Amino acid sequence: MQILVCNAGSTSLKMKLLQMPQEQVLVECRMDRIGDPTGGSFSYTEGDRKESLSVKLENYEQGLQQFICCFGKDRLSQIEAVGFKSVLSRGYTGVHRIDEAVMEGMREYLSVAPVHNTCYLEVIGVFQKLLPETPLVGAFETAFHQTLKPEAYTYAIPYAWQEQYGIRRYGYHGASHSYVADVLKERLGEHYKAVSCHLGGSSSLAAIIDGEGIDTSFGLSLQVGVPQGSRSGDIDPFIIFHMVQKEGYALEEVKKILESQSGLKGISGVSGDMRDLEAAAQQGNARAQLAIDIYCREIARYIGGYATMMGGLDAIAFTGGVGENSSNVRGKVLQYFAYLGATQPVEAVRGEICDISGQGSKVKVFAIPANEELGVARKTYQALM
Amino acid sequence: MQILVCNAGSTSLKMKLLQMPQEQVLVECRMDRIGDPTGGSFSYTEGDRKESLSVKLENYEQGLQQFICCFGKDRLSQIEAVGFKSVLSRGYTGVHRIDEAVMEGMREYLSVAPVHNTCYLEVIGVFQKLLPETPLVGAFETAFHQTLKPEAYTYAIPYAWQEQYGIRRYGYHGASHSYVADVLKERLGEHYKAVSCHLGGSSSLAAIIDGEGIDTSFGLSLQVGVPQGSRSGDIDPFIIFHMVQKEGYALEEVKKILESQSGLKGISGVSGDMRDLEAAAQQGNARAQLAIDIYCREIARYIGGYATMMGGLDAIAFTGGVGENSSNVRGKVLQYFAYLGATQPVEAVRGEICDISGQGSKVKVFAIPANEELGVARKTYQALM
Repeated sequence: MQILVCNAGSTSLKMKLLQMPQEQVLVECRMDRIGDPTGGSFSYTEGDRKESLSVKLENYEQGLQQFICCFGKDRLSQIEAVGFKSVLSRGYTGVHRIDEAVMEGMREYLSVAPVHNTCYLEVIGVFQKLLPETPLVGAFETAFHQTLKPEAYTYAIPYAWQEQYGIRRYGYHGASHSYVADVLKERLGEHYKAVSCHLGGSSSLAAIIDGEGIDTSFGLSLQVGVPQGSRSGDIDPFIIFHMVQKEGYALEEVKKILESQSGLKGISGVSGDMRDLEAAAQQGNARAQLAIDIYCREIARYIGGYATMMGGLDAIAFTGGVGENSSNVRGKVLQYFAYLGATQPVEAVRGEICDISGQGSKVKVFAIPANEELGVARKTYQALM
Repeated sequence: MQILVCNAGSTSLKMKLLQMPQEQVLVECRMDRIGDPTGGSFSYTEGDRKESLSVKLENYEQGLQQFICCFGKDRLSQIEAVGFKSVLSRGYTGVHRIDEAVMEGMREYLSVAPVHNTCYLEVIGVFQKLLPETPLVGAFETAFHQTLKPEAYTYAIPYAWQEQYGIRRYGYHGASHSYVADVLKERLGEHYKAVSCHLGGSSSLAAIIDGEGIDTSFGLSLQVGVPQGSRSGDIDPFIIFHMVQKEGYALEEVKKILESQSGLKGISGVSGDMRDLEAAAQQGNARAQLAIDIYCREIARYIGGYATMMGGLDAIAFTGGVGENSSNVRGKVLQYFAYLGATQPVEAVRGEICDISGQGSKVKVFAIPANEELGVARKTYQALM
C-alpha cells in the first residue's frame, strides 16, 4: 500500500510517499516559504531523480499542483491513502478517518492550536478536492498520549471545564514520541522506563513505560512545558492577568507575545534557534547562555520528575533538530543525572540512531533522528488494515 | 526585645508576642471571621490566662482594639517592634522596615497577590496609627527565596518584562521554609539536600541545599505549583485565552474561578480541605480520590525534579496543616521514592518535630509543625540588631 504522509507547517509542507508495510520511501517532496511574496522553494526526490526550484507558491494548493506535475497526474490513483501529522481535534485524540466531524473538531480548537490547525484545515481541504476518492487519515499528534491516566491529564480547575469544554492535558509530538518508543523497544526490549525528549523549535518530553506514554510536557496547548523557541513554555498564568490588568496590555497582545516573542528568543533577545544561541554564548553573550542554561535545566527538571513518576529511569532519548544535533544540550542535561549513575554521553553520528551512553552509565542515552513521517505512515497503515 | 508578630489572612489575624532572642512566647492572640456580619471569634492567651469570646469584629482595627483591651494599653510601649508575615512588594524581596515606598510596592502588586496584599496593607495601616513610634518590619514571604539564581527565577518571556515590570519567580511561604531549613540544620548538620513541603490550604515546595533555597514551586504569584485548596496551581496558560476567546468567559471571571473554584476543590467538587477529601474518598467518592491522587503525584513530581536540580535527596520535610497531619498524603508521596531507597514513613506525634523516616530509608523524612511566627520573629530581630 502506498501512503502519502503530509507534515504541514505554517509556511512549509513536507511530504513522503511510503510503501507500507515495507516502510520504503518512494518519494520525498518539500516546499518552503509558502505564501512569501518574494518567492519560496520546492524540491522533489524520487530514486535518483532530484528536482529543486525557486518558485513563488501562493498557497498549499499551488504547492500540491507542483507536486502533481513532478509525480504525474496519471499515477495519483496509486496513492491509496494520505496520512496527516495533524495536531488537535476536539473529541478525537487518536487516529481517525477525516470527515466533516473531525474537521469541525479542529475548528473548535483553533484558539488552542491556531497556527497548526489553520494550516492542516487548509491542506486537507486541498486534498479533498484533488483526491476525492482517497481515504484521508488524521494521525493526531495527541494519539501517543491516549494512555495517560486521569491523574496525569486532569488540571486542577473546575471538573466541569473538562467535561463541558474538553480542557485537559492532551500532549503533542505524538508521531515523534511514538517512533522513539518503537526504537527503544528494539534497543531495550519490551520493558523499560524512559523519557523521550523531542527538542527543536518546538520541544516536548514524554515519559514512557514499556512503550506507553504515562505523562508529557505539552498540555492542552503546545505552549507549555520546557521553553520553546519563541513560545513561553511553563509560566505563572497570573502573568497574563498582571500584564492586562496592571500594565495595560490587550489580552490578544499578551497572547501574541507569549506565542512569538517568548521562549529562548525572549530570554536571550538573540534568537529562538539553538545554533544561534550556542554561537552567541560562545562569543560571551550572557543572555544567550542564560537561555541555554534555563532550557537544559528545565529539560532535566522534567526528566527528574518523570523518573519519579515511573519509579526509575533506564534511558533518555534525544530527538528533533536540537536533540539530534546539539551535543552541548545533551551533555548539559546529563550532568544533572550523575546522582542516578549517569555519565557524560559520547558523540552521536549525524543521521543515525546512536547509543551514546557514556562509559559505565547506569542510564542509557540515545540520539535518534526524528522520523515523524514514518510514525504517521505506520499509524495510517494500521488504521486502514 | 519583645517582638509582636502578625500573620494576617483575608478574614483572620494571628499574633504572637515573643521575647527575642530567647524565642519565648509571651502572648498569643487569634481572631477569626473578621468582617463576618454574623460574628466572629477572639482568643487571647498569656501564661495561665486564657480568654475566648464570640464577638463581631468589623475590621482589623476593632480586632486590634480588642487585643489592646486584653494586653493593656500601658504595656504597649514594651512592644519594641512589630514583624509582619507580609507577602510581596515590588522591588522588596527580603526583610524591610516598612515605609511608604515598601507599601507602594505592595500596592503595585495587588494584581498578583490581591487577597494577601490587601489585608496586610490594611493591618499595617492600623499599626501605624496605634503604634506610630514602633518600628514595623515586613519579613516578606519572598525573603527565603532570594538565593535563587537567574536560571531558577527567570521565565521564558521577553526579558524586558523582568526588567521593566519585575515579572519573575519570587516564591512565598518563606517564613515557613526558613524555619524548616533551621530545623533541618539542627537534625542533619550544615550540609544537606532537602525539599521542604509546606502543605495546607496553600501549598508550596522549596528545594534547599545547605540551608539555602535554590528553587521553589510558587512563582510570581501564589497561584502556581502543586494544586492549592481552591487555587489552580500549574495550568496551561492557554486555558485562559481559550475560555475567554472561545467559550465567552470574561477575563475577570476566569481569574476568579482560578482563584476560588479550582485546585482540590475544583477537581473533587467536594472541598479544598484535605480532611473533607480524605473522608469523602474513604466513602468511595472517586473525584475526591482523584484530587488526592493528583495532589500527591504533583508533590512527588516536584520533589523528583528538585532532587535532579540538587543532584540528590537527603531529606523530605513536611509542614503546614496537611503536611503535619496527613499520614495518608506523606505515605502516598513517599511511595514514589522507592527508586531512591526511601521506605514508608512511620507515624508522627502531633505538634512535635518528628523524624518519621521508615526503617532503612535512604531518604530521611520529617514532620515539622509549622512555626511561621518564629521565622518572622527571627528575621525581624536580625533586621533590627
